[in-house]
Amino acid sequence: MAAVEKAGEFVVDSGDGVWITDSDGNRYLDATAGLWFANVGHGRGELADAAAKQMRKVAAYSTFGDVATRPTLELAERLADISPMADTKVFFTSGGSDSVETAVKLARRYWHEVGKPDRTHVIGRGHGYHGMHAAGTSLSGLPLNKADHGTLVPDTATVTWDDPADLAAAIERLTPERVAAFICEPVIGAGGVLPPPPGYLAEVRRICRHYDVLFIADEVVTGYGRLGHWFASGRFGLEPDMIVTAKGLTSGYAPMGAVLVGPRVSEPFFRPAGGVWWRHGYTYSGHAMCAAVALANLDLIEREDLVRSAAALEGVIVDHLGRLASHSAVTEVRCGVGALAAVQLKNAASAQDAVRAARAHGVSTRAIGAGALQVSPAFVATSVDIAAIAAGLSAALDTLVEPHIPDPRSDGASR
Amino acid sequence: MAAVEKAGEFVVDSGDGVWITDSDGNRYLDATAGLWFANVGHGRGELADAAAKQMRKVAAYSTFGDVATRPTLELAERLADISPMADTKVFFTSGGSDSVETAVKLARRYWHEVGKPDRTHVIGRGHGYHGMHAAGTSLSGLPLNKADHGTLVPDTATVTWDDPADLAAAIERLTPERVAAFICEPVIGAGGVLPPPPGYLAEVRRICRHYDVLFIADEVVTGYGRLGHWFASGRFGLEPDMIVTAKGLTSGYAPMGAVLVGPRVSEPFFRPAGGVWWRHGYTYSGHAMCAAVALANLDLIEREDLVRSAAALEGVIVDHLGRLASHSAVTEVRCGVGALAAVQLKNAASAQDAVRAARAHGVSTRAIGAGALQVSPAFVATSVDIAAIAAGLSAALDTLVEPHIPDPRSDGASR
Ligand SMILES: Cc1ncc(COP(=O)(O)O)c(C=O)c1O
Ligand SMILES: Cc1ncc(COP(=O)(O)O)c(C=O)c1O
Repeated sequence: MAAVEKAGEFVVDSGDGVWITDSDGNRYLDATAGLWFANVGHGRGELADAAAKQMRKVAAYSTFGDVATRPTLELAERLADISPMADTKVFFTSGGSDSVETAVKLARRYWHEVGKPDRTHVIGRGHGYHGMHAAGTSLSGLPLNKADHGTLVPDTATVTWDDPADLAAAIERLTPERVAAFICEPVIGAGGVLPPPPGYLAEVRRICRHYDVLFIADEVVTGYGRLGHWFASGRFGLEPDMIVTAKGLTSGYAPMGAVLVGPRVSEPFFRPAGGVWWRHGYTYSGHAMCAAVALANLDLIEREDLVRSAAALEGVIVDHLGRLASHSAVTEVRCGVGALAAVQLKNAASAQDAVRAARAHGVSTRAIGAGALQVSPAFVATSVDIAAIAAGLSAALDTLVEPHIPDPRSDGASR
Repeated sequence: MAAVEKAGEFVVDSGDGVWITDSDGNRYLDATAGLWFANVGHGRGELADAAAKQMRKVAAYSTFGDVATRPTLELAERLADISPMADTKVFFTSGGSDSVETAVKLARRYWHEVGKPDRTHVIGRGHGYHGMHAAGTSLSGLPLNKADHGTLVPDTATVTWDDPADLAAAIERLTPERVAAFICEPVIGAGGVLPPPPGYLAEVRRICRHYDVLFIADEVVTGYGRLGHWFASGRFGLEPDMIVTAKGLTSGYAPMGAVLVGPRVSEPFFRPAGGVWWRHGYTYSGHAMCAAVALANLDLIEREDLVRSAAALEGVIVDHLGRLASHSAVTEVRCGVGALAAVQLKNAASAQDAVRAARAHGVSTRAIGAGALQVSPAFVATSVDIAAIAAGLSAALDTLVEPHIPDPRSDGASR
């Protein structure tokens, strides 16, 4: 829970591209782009201008019933254009967890509308992360996130993250006629940056088709360019039924998410003779200021060709971060799939120490999965930046295995 | 779902105080302040400036682990100061539905930590609205919102909205040892603006204390001044265990919510010897730009004494809207509790017609509950504005019961 600024807190005061500055004036390379969102880098004035301009006009009104605001409509069109699915409809939210709840409710409601209301079960993967609302918590593949809240959403199940046969077995066990959807991060993010084993995605996609189970791609991390394509679903040819998004949509400058809905799932709600009215929506669904920020963010990504930059970072990250695999504190470096990597520590319990040591060496990172360090830089990062991140992490890792050598940047004060 | 701008859509293009303008240039008095949020009125430049300034610095970073941003910490302090509970801790979210999920998870987790994990049931009221995520949907007192999604969150129940004895009976039936919390809008909002029957709130509060059930006030509509006090919990002396908020926190200028947590519930997580680490949080929890907007919004409310303005609007609304009770299309006008009213139509099915007729008479409203028209103006509304809203609604109601008389403002085109 939030509390007053205390000794030992890391208070981020400002940011500029791949750099952040804390409240004591220390500068750090931001290895994580905030929480995997600041894809265009921090402090981009044109996003601030877009927000302020829309707020002076009207910050928000409503998207309920027949009401809308202009940037919302424009953004829906724009997302349909870049969506890897045909004829995409868009449901706006304020973040990834919201998008997960929306997709889960919509999957179940879809099956109800097509006469199969028993299809209620939703299956996720071990190590999967789908946010913190009730459905997302229940779908978590991270047991500690789920524990000790009683049953949140029943008819949810978790299968091993890497074995398609386990998904097929789970569907058979539940009986296919009771399974609504499978939700899948194309690359598992918060669970530790776990790229899909070769052939995994194609096979689980096939299994879902075989059993007529909806395929929901959770692209909260991978959407909007991080894997060097607009969507991981495009990179891997997934043809999902829905895509859950947030983060990169606005580069985190304003809270917004979107569920991209393919034609199969939207059909009952858009029938020419008058679709079913789905009573679902949030006050800030399609918030005008957030939509204006998202539009400016997509403009910037296109103008600066940042999806291509993210693609190019893949090799740069493999080159520089990949080398850390030989460090004695490290078991492996997971990379090679876009502007993403995780440095897996031998000693998972040392992850918080590693994070603090990295800060002392001028790099902001965080612990994810079972003791791994997150690397998900802004797409504007240069190869010099990536080399510096790798060097900072390497020096930090040294402190885990060697007697402590004073850090030249540190004045000894806790920061 | 969002779609392209179509004939028949009401596209809000700009706003200024209590006025909005549609994409055809028509102006309307905004009777609802958007979706009950634009408490300081639309188009306030200083909120735009606050957003842009923070976005140029750093729009967001993280509030996970030991990380924070400055406006977030400042806002948490500020909310603790205005909270009607002692020693308030703050959990930030991006909207009302998020705050509900957070409060429900926290209630259950609290009971787990104090050794009573069987206290999982959460009880809501008929006509209650608690947002659209899984837990909030299950707690809905509006059956249509809940229907046809299978079981979302079990161990949820609904009691009649106006009879405390029904709450006591439900607790007895479930057995008190299995009940975690009661969630209650002090004034039911989306369910139709239903003020509490005399004595109702004091009695349900007593019942919760008697059975040791947590009392969660859902103040998404009533919080931050709408009832002429900072919180309805203060006005009614509720002493809740948690307060769920959103909307008025930022006047809707940026998506943000907050759960205010009293000392009883926060205790296990803040023990001096090291509290339990609750693994819950959203990417945009405490979003720096949103926090900066909230701070500017609270500054503005204080500087212009807008909580007092809302209190004064109570009588003005009773005077002007109250008169509509004698209109032949109306059964009653519910008002007298802050800057809130609902005009209940005799013929619930005519509500959408009434909304369109109101637009034709220059007033933007919407249908809530069982065919009522929402009135929840910005706190900056003058008595002239309220009189004009009442006059516009009156003229609109005339069209429901009389042969249609051409509207002088209308050019005959559908809008
Ligand atoms: C894959 C995935 N899904 C959902 C979420 C939840 O998003 P949010 O934190 O915006 O609610 C996240 C957040 O990191 C995520 O990585
Ligand atoms: C009392 C109450 N609770 C919760 C919510 C949900 O808030 P949001 O739409 O911001 O998710 C609302 C929204 O109107 C509300 O009125």
